[in-house]
Amino acid sequence: MTRTRFHQGLDELKEKLLRMGGMAESAVERAVQAYIRRDPELANRVLSDEGDINTTEREIDELALDLLAMQQPMAVDLRFITAVMKINADLERVGDQAVNIAERAIDAAGLPPVDLPVDVPRMAVTAAGMVRDALQSFIDAKAETAESLLKQDDVVDEMNREIARAMLDWMTRDPQTTRQAMNALLIARNLERVADHATNIAEDVIFWVRGADVRHQGSATIPRS
Amino acid sequence: MTRTRFHQGLDELKEKLLRMGGMAESAVERAVQAYIRRDPELANRVLSDEGDINTTEREIDELALDLLAMQQPMAVDLRFITAVMKINADLERVGDQAVNIAERAIDAAGLPPVDLPVDVPRMAVTAAGMVRDALQSFIDAKAETAESLLKQDDVVDEMNREIARAMLDWMTRDPQTTRQAMNALLIARNLERVADHATNIAEDVIFWVRGADVRHQGSATIPRS
Repeated sequence: MTRTRFHQGLDELKEKLLRMGGMAESAVERAVQAYIRRDPELANRVLSDEGDINTTEREIDELALDLLAMQQPMAVDLRFITAVMKINADLERVGDQAVNIAERAIDAAGLPPVDLPVDVPRMAVTAAGMVRDALQSFIDAKAETAESLLKQDDVVDEMNREIARAMLDWMTRDPQTTRQAMNALLIARNLERVADHATNIAEDVIFWVRGADVRHQGSATIPRS
Repeated sequence: MTRTRFHQGLDELKEKLLRMGGMAESAVERAVQAYIRRDPELANRVLSDEGDINTTEREIDELALDLLAMQQPMAVDLRFITAVMKINADLERVGDQAVNIAERAIDAAGLPPVDLPVDVPRMAVTAAGMVRDALQSFIDAKAETAESLLKQDDVVDEMNREIARAMLDWMTRDPQTTRQAMNALLIARNLERVADHATNIAEDVIFWVRGADVRHQGSATIPRS
């Protein structure tokens, strides 16, 4: 097994992880769109696409294991590969959150519409953007980008608390639409979890970049900018 | 670095993971106890113990990385080490769920008590037991035990759905205690997530045992029973 084959493997691993990220991100976006447009068909597509995400997760894990087994990886490559495995697991869970949102969307589409005072789309844009930025910080090996995400997580947490408060209030005042308010509340919670996973990814990037930087060992497998 | 030192490292890794599992499990149990007994002090202990869980998570990751870097591990050891890393991440998230439950317990302790028709303790015993069994299946390298957990997960899912239905009903009928019902609903959801993490661990065990069994490569690092 040549060093070159190993590096081709690393490139493939990175590529697959990006694809996985794109799948997870668009699952979240679709699920939220399905909720907003009251479109159970779109929500069902999120449910049926979950299998692909899980398959890709396994493929990434297998490839990572193969690379680890292929040769004695240098510390920097080792950290890269294990970071990929951790990020991979987080992306799969972003996909799980999309499924949860899609299930709420299906439930909501079957209920009379209510004009609730919550800005789910804004929260969704923020949370999905965090996933994208977290992956980008990994590609660029930029701990600073990753660090800025930790602050954004507080913003999303606050959005979630605000929506929870507003929906609890709503339920108390209009018990007939409790179920609709509950769906909004749970979707906000799911989006907060999506942001948490982006934060986990950011933490792994910081850990990986710092570890690699501190140790100064060998081949940079990812371009530093 | 001798093979023996490497195997001592694997033993230490296993030991640390078991400790991590014990911490995560008792965090869940304490958080639920805090909710049931309306004991915010106990809930606060769960919050302050979270740092220890996170520290242990990092220690396990570092040790796993050191072992991977130490020498060319055989396929069976490689799978074992990466399985540990994945299980480790799940246990940390079990700890996160305990924190969520503890936060609900603190909120609930500040509200007038309501006798809600939900069996949170039964659900907690089931979910925490699943985490314990999942870890045990790992220690014993038993795919069958892990497989039985996948079925138990369906039971917990059903408990969660039942509680959600009952609490939605409750809120509609008694809007004045919506907040108390909401806390019960969210705790049930958190326990359902705990069971999900146990299921993830079980899946990793199956993947690890099967992979190891199929490949028949070298040193069994864990006694098979």
